[in-house]
Amino acid sequence: MTEDGFALPDATVAIVGLGLMGGSLALALRAKNVCRSILGVTRNPAALESALARGAIDAASADLSLASEADIIILATPVRTILDQIPHVGPIARQGAIVMDLGSTKRAIVQAMEALPPHVKPIGAHPMCGKETFGFDAAEPGLYRNATFVLTPLARTSASTLALAESLARAIGARPLVLDAARHDQMVALTSHLPFALASTLMTTVGEMAHADASVYRLAASGFRDTTRLAAGDATMMLDTLITNRENVSHAVRLCAHHLNELADLIAAGNEPELRSLLQSAAVQRRALKFEI
Amino acid sequence: MTEDGFALPDATVAIVGLGLMGGSLALALRAKNVCRSILGVTRNPAALESALARGAIDAASADLSLASEADIIILATPVRTILDQIPHVGPIARQGAIVMDLGSTKRAIVQAMEALPPHVKPIGAHPMCGKETFGFDAAEPGLYRNATFVLTPLARTSASTLALAESLARAIGARPLVLDAARHDQMVALTSHLPFALASTLMTTVGEMAHADASVYRLAASGFRDTTRLAAGDATMMLDTLITNRENVSHAVRLCAHHLNELADLIAAGNEPELRSLLQSAAVQRRALKFEI
Repeated sequence: MTEDGFALPDATVAIVGLGLMGGSLALALRAKNVCRSILGVTRNPAALESALARGAIDAASADLSLASEADIIILATPVRTILDQIPHVGPIARQGAIVMDLGSTKRAIVQAMEALPPHVKPIGAHPMCGKETFGFDAAEPGLYRNATFVLTPLARTSASTLALAESLARAIGARPLVLDAARHDQMVALTSHLPFALASTLMTTVGEMAHADASVYRLAASGFRDTTRLAAGDATMMLDTLITNRENVSHAVRLCAHHLNELADLIAAGNEPELRSLLQSAAVQRRALKFEI
Repeated sequence: MTEDGFALPDATVAIVGLGLMGGSLALALRAKNVCRSILGVTRNPAALESALARGAIDAASADLSLASEADIIILATPVRTILDQIPHVGPIARQGAIVMDLGSTKRAIVQAMEALPPHVKPIGAHPMCGKETFGFDAAEPGLYRNATFVLTPLARTSASTLALAESLARAIGARPLVLDAARHDQMVALTSHLPFALASTLMTTVGEMAHADASVYRLAASGFRDTTRLAAGDATMMLDTLITNRENVSHAVRLCAHHLNELADLIAAGNEPELRSLLQSAAVQRRALKFEI
């Protein structure tokens, strides 16, 4: 028992949104026997039925009021849906309930959480995992394994609330990392939103040629497959992500476009020494990275 | 027996360059028992020893003159090394030998092949497969399986030479596709060289931020991993590829940078209808693609 009035194994967790992230979280909490019970809130009847059928949740409702029974309420919807939901969570949440979210951008959400009533304990979160498929059918209990699980506490977030959020992250195999919300948003603009922008724009650019001659895809191999993979993701979720991080993302995309034009200039001019140095430097940096997910 | 004077099962094949592509070809020809014997030409003593030790080749030399015994000579070095080698192949090649290459760009190579003496039979080739590791140690007999194997015949290439090249491609599990060399170079600029340029530039862009704060990589997940994968490739090979296709590649990179700036404008302006339409269109196109490698 912590000062929050409950310990994780005794907690009832309500997950709002049972898509890839929320569904995988429910499956992971269940598989690892992390908490006492799991409630699911979704307006998607198919996801609700699947989650009950797979035993991921103990009870379900289309109505947020089900979360009034929870010690921990986790908002696992797209960012702007989270922003819409936050004002409705305070009135229904029990005394001392932790309110967490899994949104892909954090500054706007943490700011909205500041307005939550004093009887709830807010903290922002962003697990760095996902895949290009989505919805509960794509959910899997291992999604969070080895993933960095960013936590963005508010000024009002207590050490014990942070500790409980960290233990939840560790319990599902993830690695907690505490970050300032604004810094998080700057970083993911480069490591997550920019790669999506490149994948989508590559698909758009080649799609234009394919429109004239579809056989171009016969020359698309594993490199094209991997570089465009993110483009297949959920456009609605990405739209929320890009719009709620628009300054950082538009800056990152323009910076990358600028570097691309510099690269094109070197190629067009046949400037081999600089081209070799640039490509070699990127190769060395990429080979030095180790990915555990 | 064809009009070329030999059938594939009776042929001696010389592979010049025993890196990822040449080494994998040797292993595939051996595994599928495609030809009578396989000769390896490389100036890399380690690759030569490994290839002999793994039984990929029957004989090896650092000297191109070994290829004088071959019915089929396959140049599997970087593009500009191929361009350097072509003038030396004619004088040593036997009467009726097929001279093929595996270079990533085709226009310059096919042009150089035009100058080969009349007693040899040239044809360009480009198998659409690879990976970000390289050298003989990375070679594998299954590399060509299901890969599109582009063949770019010259005006002088006979139907029987083309048929023999196609049967070689099929014998190692690849799918032959006959294309004009110039058209090939336009297409791979988009499907292969542009993805590499994006991967490398993404690595450069994020690397700049990492220089100030290396913890940015803790926020790099599978999306960043896949989108940057190509950046780890062999810079020397890519340099040859980009330089010998410079007009097409610089055009493709600039076109993509232009589309990226358009995307950044939509994001910065919060133009949701156009942004949604753009991302959704790319997602639909990407999901429609099926990759068999």
